[in-house]
Amino acid sequence: MSEEDPASDDPDATSDNGFESVVADIHERIEPSADERERLRAVADRLVARAEAAATDRCPDADIIQAGSTARNTWVSGDRDIDIFVRFPPDLEREQLERYGLEVGHETLPDGHEEYAEHPYVKGTVEGFDIDVVPCFRLESATEIRSAVDRTPFHTQYLEARLDDDLADDVRLTKQFLKGIGAYGSDLRTRGFSGYLTELLVVEYGGFRNLLEAAANWHPQVELDPENHGRETFHDPLVVIDPTDPERNVAAVCSPENVARLQHYARSFLETPRVEVFEPAAPEPLSESELRTHLERRGTTPVAVRFEAPDLVEDQLYPQLQKSVDGIATGLDDRGFDIFRATTMADDTAVIFVELAVSERPAIEGHRGPPIHVRSHAEGFYDAYADDPEAYGPFIAGDRYVTERPREFTTAREFLASDRLFDVGLGAHVETALENEYEVLVGEEITALLEEFGPELGRYFEPHP
Amino acid sequence: MSEEDPASDDPDATSDNGFESVVADIHERIEPSADERERLRAVADRLVARAEAAATDRCPDADIIQAGSTARNTWVSGDRDIDIFVRFPPDLEREQLERYGLEVGHETLPDGHEEYAEHPYVKGTVEGFDIDVVPCFRLESATEIRSAVDRTPFHTQYLEARLDDDLADDVRLTKQFLKGIGAYGSDLRTRGFSGYLTELLVVEYGGFRNLLEAAANWHPQVELDPENHGRETFHDPLVVIDPTDPERNVAAVCSPENVARLQHYARSFLETPRVEVFEPAAPEPLSESELRTHLERRGTTPVAVRFEAPDLVEDQLYPQLQKSVDGIATGLDDRGFDIFRATTMADDTAVIFVELAVSERPAIEGHRGPPIHVRSHAEGFYDAYADDPEAYGPFIAGDRYVTERPREFTTAREFLASDRLFDVGLGAHVETALENEYEVLVGEEITALLEEFGPELGRYFEPHP
Repeated sequence: MSEEDPASDDPDATSDNGFESVVADIHERIEPSADERERLRAVADRLVARAEAAATDRCPDADIIQAGSTARNTWVSGDRDIDIFVRFPPDLEREQLERYGLEVGHETLPDGHEEYAEHPYVKGTVEGFDIDVVPCFRLESATEIRSAVDRTPFHTQYLEARLDDDLADDVRLTKQFLKGIGAYGSDLRTRGFSGYLTELLVVEYGGFRNLLEAAANWHPQVELDPENHGRETFHDPLVVIDPTDPERNVAAVCSPENVARLQHYARSFLETPRVEVFEPAAPEPLSESELRTHLERRGTTPVAVRFEAPDLVEDQLYPQLQKSVDGIATGLDDRGFDIFRATTMADDTAVIFVELAVSERPAIEGHRGPPIHVRSHAEGFYDAYADDPEAYGPFIAGDRYVTERPREFTTAREFLASDRLFDVGLGAHVETALENEYEVLVGEEITALLEEFGPELGRYFEPHP
Repeated sequence: MSEEDPASDDPDATSDNGFESVVADIHERIEPSADERERLRAVADRLVARAEAAATDRCPDADIIQAGSTARNTWVSGDRDIDIFVRFPPDLEREQLERYGLEVGHETLPDGHEEYAEHPYVKGTVEGFDIDVVPCFRLESATEIRSAVDRTPFHTQYLEARLDDDLADDVRLTKQFLKGIGAYGSDLRTRGFSGYLTELLVVEYGGFRNLLEAAANWHPQVELDPENHGRETFHDPLVVIDPTDPERNVAAVCSPENVARLQHYARSFLETPRVEVFEPAAPEPLSESELRTHLERRGTTPVAVRFEAPDLVEDQLYPQLQKSVDGIATGLDDRGFDIFRATTMADDTAVIFVELAVSERPAIEGHRGPPIHVRSHAEGFYDAYADDPEAYGPFIAGDRYVTERPREFTTAREFLASDRLFDVGLGAHVETALENEYEVLVGEEITALLEEFGPELGRYFEPHP
C-alpha cells in the first residue's frame, strides 16, 4: 500500500477515518519543544566536551560519540536519557579501558556512581537528565565487537544516515504507540521492542503508518534484513538482522505475545484511530469486593506462593520469577492440579500466582506398570504391590499391570507447603528466598495480596490484549 | 524347554514343586467318566443317525459331521454341547440349503427351536445335552467357504489328525486353566481363547506345560503359523494363522488383556502350582458397607448411567455396551471430568459405570482462538468475544487470542443428565434404550446398584489380574 497513491482501493489509505488528525495530535504531545531540545543540547554539549577533554588527556586517540535517541532526535518528549560513549582505540588493554572509562565518567559526572553492564560505567543526573558515560572500543566493523556496548556507536551511525526529520517524527510516534500498548522495551520483564528495533522497523517500512499496515498482515516468522547480509537461522517470530552485524537478530528478545500485540493494535488502530491507544493503561487496583466477585464468578482456585523479593535488578529478577512460575505450574500439573493461568508479581514481596481449575484430587492414583511381556520388570512390579494393603491391584489393563495406590498430595496446598516444591525448576535466588521463608495462600486468602498488588491483580482478572 | 530333558538347568522343568500332582488332580476332576462318555456317545450317535436319514432323504449327496470338542474327545467333564454339521454339496442353492437345514434340524430335534447365526439352524436339548444341528456346504478347501460355519468341519478334520490321547488330556487341562483365569471363550463379552484356538496352541507347543512355559516368555506380537502358509498382516497381540485358512487369525478376538492374563498366570502357576487357578473365581457380592468403605478410601466419584438392558444376545450387547462406555468416558473426559476407570454391567438393567478422579470443574473455561496472524479468523474471534459480558478477554497468550467463558457443564452429573450425552458414540440399541429412559447415579447413590450388581461391583473394587 503506497501512501503516494490516493486512488488506491484500499480503505485504510483513502478513507478519512481520523488517522491523520489523531497522529497529528499525538505528534504534538510527544515532540520535544524547542526549549526542551535546547536544554538537552546544552547539557549534552557540555558533558561531551568534558568527557572529551578527560578522555584525550588519558589517551590522545580517544573520541566521544553521543548515542541513543537523544542523539538521533528520536526521543519522545519527557525522555531524559543521554548516552555518552567514550571510544578508545582497540589496542588498549581491556583493564586500561575500564580504568580510563571510570575516570572519564567521574570527571564528567562528579556526582555519578558506578554501575556494571559488560564494562563498568558511570551513571549520574545533571539538570534532570539521566546520563550514562560508557567506555567502548572503536572498531572498524561491528562484527569485531568485544562486548555489546561496542556495537552502539555503529547503530547510531547507521541510523543517523537514514533518519530524516519525517522518519524521526514517525519513530517517536511508533515508540509512543508501543509504550501505549505495553510492548516497548527490551528489558526482560517486558520482552518488547527496543528503541533500536523500533527505529529500524520505521526506516525499513518507511514510516509509522506503513509499519502498522505491514504488521497488521504479518505472518510470523517475519524476517527483515536491511543490509541483506544475514546468514544465521533464527526461531523468533520477528527477525530483524542487525544492519551492523549479520549474526544478530535485533528482535531476539521480543516475545510472541508482543509481536501479536503489535499486530492486534495495528489492525485496531487502522480501523479506529484513537489517541487512547498511545496512552499506557495504568490499571486500577482491584478492590476486595471486585476480587471476591471474580473468584465467585470463575469458580477456580487461585494459589499463591509469596516470599521476600530477591534483591536483584529487574532483568535478573523477572527471568527467575518466570522460570519459577513455570516450574511450580509444571509441578502442580504433574500432580493432577490442572492449571488455568499463571503469573508473577514483584515489589517488596514476590508472588508466584497460579490459578487452578482443579485443586483437589482423589486419595488414590492409578500407577501403570511395565508391559507384562517384559518379564523381569513385570514380575518386579507385581511382587512390589501384590501384598501392599494400601494398593488396589495389581490388575491388568491392556498389556500392562496397573495398581492404584495412595496419592502423595490430594490438595495443591499440601504440595506447595511440602519440600517437594523444591524439586521443581526454580530460579536460583527464588529458591534461596523460599528456603528462607514463604507463605501459601489458597482461594480467598489471596485477598491478602491486594494491598501490595492491587493493580497486578486487576490486570490479571481483567485481561486485555 | 523340553520335558524330555530332565537334566536341564531350568528350575521349572526339574524342581518338583508339585506341578505334576496338581495337574493329575485337575485331570482327574475334569476328565469325563466312562459313563459320561458313553451317555454322550449314545445320544450323539442316535442324533447323527437321525440327521443323516433326514438329510439324505432330501439330498442323497448330503453327509453328517460331528464337530466341536465332544467330537474330538477334548471336552471337559460337564460340558454338554453336541454340534452336528449337516453338509450339503456346494452346488445347492443357498435358500435350498437353509430350508433343508431347518427341516433336518426339526426332524432331528422335534422339540428344538430355530436360531440364527450366519445360516438359520435348529437348537434343542436331548437328555441334558445341548444340541446344535447346523447346515453347511461341503467344500474342497476352507478357503472356499461361504460362511463361518462351513469352516468348522475342516477344523475338526485338522485336529482329529493331530490330537492323540495325551494331547487331548492337555487340551482339557488348558481349557480348564483358561476357564479358571477367566480367559476362556471367544464370545464378545470375554474376548478370550476359543476352544479351537486352545487346541491349536496345545498341538503347536506340544502340551499344557510347554504352552505355559512358552506363554510365560511371550513377547507379543506372537505369531504361530502351523501350516506356514500365512500371507496377511495382523495387528493382534497373538496371531495364530488358521491351518485351514491362510487369511484368518484364529486369535483375532483375543484381547491384549487376555493374552497378558495367560502370561501372568502361566508364570504364577509354574512358580507355584495350585489347584485354585483352575477354579473360576465367583466374586462375592460387595456389601453396602464394603462399598462405602471403598468409596471413602478412594475419594473418587463414581457415576453410573442405568437403563433397561436392550434385548440382545451377549455377542451383540457387550460390544454395544463397550462402545457406549468408551463414548461416554470420552464425552466426560473432553469436558474435563478426568476418568479413573470404567466398566459396564448388564442383567435386567444395564449400567455404564465410570469412576471419576475429577467430577467438578470451574464455572469458566479457557477458549483458545486462532493465531493472531491469521487475520480474518483472528478478527472474527476477537469481534465475537470483545463485547461479551460473560467472557473474560480476549487477551493474548503466545501468538493467539484466548478468551475465558462460561463452561457448559460444571459437574459430571449435569452432562450425563443432558441431551449432549447423545452426541457421544453410543451403541445403537443403547441409544434407543437411553432415549426411552435412564437414571444417573453419582457418588454414594451407586449403592442402589448393589442389589443387581453386587458381584460385578466386587470385581470392580477388588480387582485382580
